[in-house]
Amino acid sequence: MKTRFVLIETSHAGNVGACARALRVMGFDDMVLVAPRWANVLRREETIQRASGALDVLARTRIVATLEEALDGISHVCATAMTARDFGPPCRPPREHLAALAGQTPHPVGVAFLFGSERFGMRNEDVYKAHVCLQIPTAPDFGSLNLGAAVQLLAYEWRLALGGFASPVTPASSDADAPADAASVAGMLKHWEEALVALGFLDPQAPKKLMPRLQQLFNRAAPTPQEIHILRGIAKCMSQAAQASNGHKR
Amino acid sequence: MKTRFVLIETSHAGNVGACARALRVMGFDDMVLVAPRWANVLRREETIQRASGALDVLARTRIVATLEEALDGISHVCATAMTARDFGPPCRPPREHLAALAGQTPHPVGVAFLFGSERFGMRNEDVYKAHVCLQIPTAPDFGSLNLGAAVQLLAYEWRLALGGFASPVTPASSDADAPADAASVAGMLKHWEEALVALGFLDPQAPKKLMPRLQQLFNRAAPTPQEIHILRGIAKCMSQAAQASNGHKR
Repeated sequence: MKTRFVLIETSHAGNVGACARALRVMGFDDMVLVAPRWANVLRREETIQRASGALDVLARTRIVATLEEALDGISHVCATAMTARDFGPPCRPPREHLAALAGQTPHPVGVAFLFGSERFGMRNEDVYKAHVCLQIPTAPDFGSLNLGAAVQLLAYEWRLALGGFASPVTPASSDADAPADAASVAGMLKHWEEALVALGFLDPQAPKKLMPRLQQLFNRAAPTPQEIHILRGIAKCMSQAAQASNGHKR
Repeated sequence: MKTRFVLIETSHAGNVGACARALRVMGFDDMVLVAPRWANVLRREETIQRASGALDVLARTRIVATLEEALDGISHVCATAMTARDFGPPCRPPREHLAALAGQTPHPVGVAFLFGSERFGMRNEDVYKAHVCLQIPTAPDFGSLNLGAAVQLLAYEWRLALGGFASPVTPASSDADAPADAASVAGMLKHWEEALVALGFLDPQAPKKLMPRLQQLFNRAAPTPQEIHILRGIAKCMSQAAQASNGHKR
């Protein structure tokens, strides 16, 4: 689905760069600037610095004079604003609205997200053009998100609504990380119990609740087979040290 | 639940300010800096500028020398990293992990989110201290989020996992915005049909599918009672204009 981010009358060049990076990292690349403060904003040092490598997005970015020119090929327009406007579109939280939008049949031809200027937000006339006004939930007494941060949040929500990216393969999710079975844990605990008795830490005549406590601890930890192996190795060493020390005493 | 954001060896003062703002807007206020590049980072101009009013967060921010000192009172530690580490904690997407964490009984005493330096990310030793490694899903070929943007995304996800903020009251959700019933829409369409016939736009001998098309259009628009009133007003005006024009012709 065509996705466009439209920044209206942006003042800070750094924010334009930050928005390019925010789009890029979520796999989007279509940005349009409507009447930015700096005509040369795409070539300013601050822009390029904050884009941090998302130069392909900057290279594709168009600058236009009016919002109308920014909306070619777009069938669903999402304004972003902290405050609802009388006679404006309905206000919705981004997550709910974007999930519904991504599931719509037929898909919208193109979706645009509009962001107003840093100082004044969106004009009423621009909000009126939108089908919905997305309100990012914020603290009641501090609702002012940075422009780049707002673009990042919506790009993220929209990407997840569209199905997200495949998770990178991580060694932590391999089979070796599956927990060992209960029998292995029980065998390891038996081994520890013997070692702790040998060490004189556990008195078999008055065991109190040491072993059930250790059982619960290891149940929560859900050790892998390899960790069971390590824990048995420790038990073995404890037993050997206890024997050696008993030999000395004799 | 106590929530802390820990920035480790941050280089850019602007990012510290952006993080303070990102926390504040999501209703958090506990930030700790571990060995930042600038000892006076909390008073630097760039920091204060990018904090954009979140000065209460900056005022509370502690600077410490080691990660250990940053983790007092914290029982669940979330690292953030693009790449998994061998022997490190399991990697999870933030949304799933934070939803599960917020639902845990008993609640963790305190949760910390760790963020590495802009240039190198997190050290292995620091990742090892964590219970989980959160991986924000990103484009496979461009995974580098700005530090402030990463903090913003996690603060947002954690706030929503904790139940979010009440939505601001919007005029768009009032009763007046409920759609009119089907009988009202049918009555309005009848009114339009008469007006369009009077105007000569609709030929009652060859109506084609004009009225069913208009019906579908208005069904999709789901007009409110007030909008029905406006549409009937337009129909009335059309009829009057048609009569006046017919009168002239006569």
